Amino acid sequence: MDGECGQYTDVTTAQTQPLVTIDDVRGAAERIRGVALETPLLRFRDVGWVKPESLQPTGSFKIRGAYNTLAQLSPEQLRTGVVAHSSGNHAQAVARAARLLGGRAVIVMPRNAPQVKVDGVRADAGEIVFVGPNNEERVQRAHEIADADGLELVPSANDVRVVAGAGTVGLEIDAQAEAAAIRGPLVVLTPVGLGGLASGIGVAIKALRPDSHVVAVEPELAADTRDSLAAGTVTPWPAELTGRTIADGLRGEAPAEIPFAHLMKHIDAVIVVSESEIASAVAVAARELKLVLEPSGAVSLAALLFHASELPHGEPICVLSGGNVDMERYVRFLSAG
Amino acid sequence: MDGECGQYTDVTTAQTQPLVTIDDVRGAAERIRGVALETPLLRFRDVGWVKPESLQPTGSFKIRGAYNTLAQLSPEQLRTGVVAHSSGNHAQAVARAARLLGGRAVIVMPRNAPQVKVDGVRADAGEIVFVGPNNEERVQRAHEIADADGLELVPSANDVRVVAGAGTVGLEIDAQAEAAAIRGPLVVLTPVGLGGLASGIGVAIKALRPDSHVVAVEPELAADTRDSLAAGTVTPWPAELTGRTIADGLRGEAPAEIPFAHLMKHIDAVIVVSESEIASAVAVAARELKLVLEPSGAVSLAALLFHASELPHGEPICVLSGGNVDMERYVRFLSAG
Repeated sequence: MDGECGQYTDVTTAQTQPLVTIDDVRGAAERIRGVALETPLLRFRDVGWVKPESLQPTGSFKIRGAYNTLAQLSPEQLRTGVVAHSSGNHAQAVARAARLLGGRAVIVMPRNAPQVKVDGVRADAGEIVFVGPNNEERVQRAHEIADADGLELVPSANDVRVVAGAGTVGLEIDAQAEAAAIRGPLVVLTPVGLGGLASGIGVAIKALRPDSHVVAVEPELAADTRDSLAAGTVTPWPAELTGRTIADGLRGEAPAEIPFAHLMKHIDAVIVVSESEIASAVAVAARELKLVLEPSGAVSLAALLFHASELPHGEPICVLSGGNVDMERYVRFLSAG
Repeated sequence: MDGECGQYTDVTTAQTQPLVTIDDVRGAAERIRGVALETPLLRFRDVGWVKPESLQPTGSFKIRGAYNTLAQLSPEQLRTGVVAHSSGNHAQAVARAARLLGGRAVIVMPRNAPQVKVDGVRADAGEIVFVGPNNEERVQRAHEIADADGLELVPSANDVRVVAGAGTVGLEIDAQAEAAAIRGPLVVLTPVGLGGLASGIGVAIKALRPDSHVVAVEPELAADTRDSLAAGTVTPWPAELTGRTIADGLRGEAPAEIPFAHLMKHIDAVIVVSESEIASAVAVAARELKLVLEPSGAVSLAALLFHASELPHGEPICVLSGGNVDMERYVRFLSAG
């Protein structure tokens, strides 16, 4: 799927814009230093590695993109505030970034968001506006708030600053693989929802290790990215379908436009995993890696555990994107797995 | 408790020996590079930091001391083999170190050791000899095996190589605190059982940051270190008492002799924590830090959560020593906490 496109079309201006570059990712790395953690590479059995973004402040990789974006706003804009819509992890990251930078954050969240994610936003003094589970309603409400009060909308994926921030995961993987003397091509497995993380990792890995592969992983109950990449155009799934997966962070109905252009260029394959595979991966991560993962964060590990034969040749590295899961649900995964 | 002693008496030769130095710790750091992980410092709320040794290969800090010891043996000795007695984490670490170095390991374990620790030893091809829960029986059996077959006994704490290996935790804390621009004295909280980890950390921290404090934490149901340091002499608790704590890694009946000399010199205070405080800390680590901890590994966090007023002035850093816990027990901690 290594297409020709090196640009995307900005829907508000109808102008073509360049894709995120490795220099953008390097700039983001400078901005987030000391705020985001350089998460370690952990060995998994004798078969690969994991990068636990669950250990980040606010419990997911989202702090990278959120902080990279807010750090580029003016002090005036930070004081006026930012608004974000999110099923949870982006919400917490924006609230944290705003607090660290002395700004105000309004977060539009679905009423069915995990309580742990709601609590996280509140702990960082984020102002929450609850809406229904539908993505569209969430997006619309956030735009209304932005327009009414002059708040800057911080998309959870559909923004070059957010993609560049997420790309720092790939930058670290490159350096850490070097330090760990990992030979040959890498196969970086990354969860994909709206596509920000997979896009950023794709930018970094393909720039630094052109012979390596980036594989996006999603639930088979929310396989909108697989369908979109196969069709060559964004192909949404209805919320009634994506809402069924336990991977609440990956219930986006389609890749966002900016990420989609990056996914088309940089993603080598998509693997879909079943609900029981995701639940097993959550339990394996606890038992063997001593990591608490949310279902969305474990899909890449599920792909390595259950779909190894579908992977390109190379050393597998699973990005574990987050660990925000309500304990009541979590205990059920451990008891079953 | 900063005593005068800079040496200990070797019971086999009755000769006085120097304590472990910072140079010994630096030598250990060279040996374990690429085998043990440089575990990250993670921010905990706005009150301190944690260092999750639970993320190490074999799930605890023990790989540091075990590998440092085995890496100094001759190829002949490695082929003949090593023997260790352990309630679990040291067992796994010795088995892993032996496998990595191409050696043989025989492990004497109590029948009541957590299944996850038994499985860990087996996964690394360690040969297990089961005995009763009594420390003394375990020690005696290991010595018999060592004498009968010419195997090198690798103590879990009572060895300067093991103490030096554990000290690399302190070496990393010093460098990471510097990198994180943490100002003022540190207060390093460390679990204490037989005392190897607390000793090593004490050596490193007191050499590199003389104004910092090292605080040992143990269950109030196994407060043998508190009593020993208060008495100025090793003061054992019977196994019937220490066996009651949920912190199975800290059921040692007294500090071992070599660690005790180091603890007398380097430890500033001992804090004891209750069983319910330990269980709460396990749950908090899962919810907020996304870390799976065994009860022993969480005692330092329990001290920060529930005994902050007893701590010396400075920036608290909790060493979380391990994460090997049977899932069935673990789920109960999460459900209760």
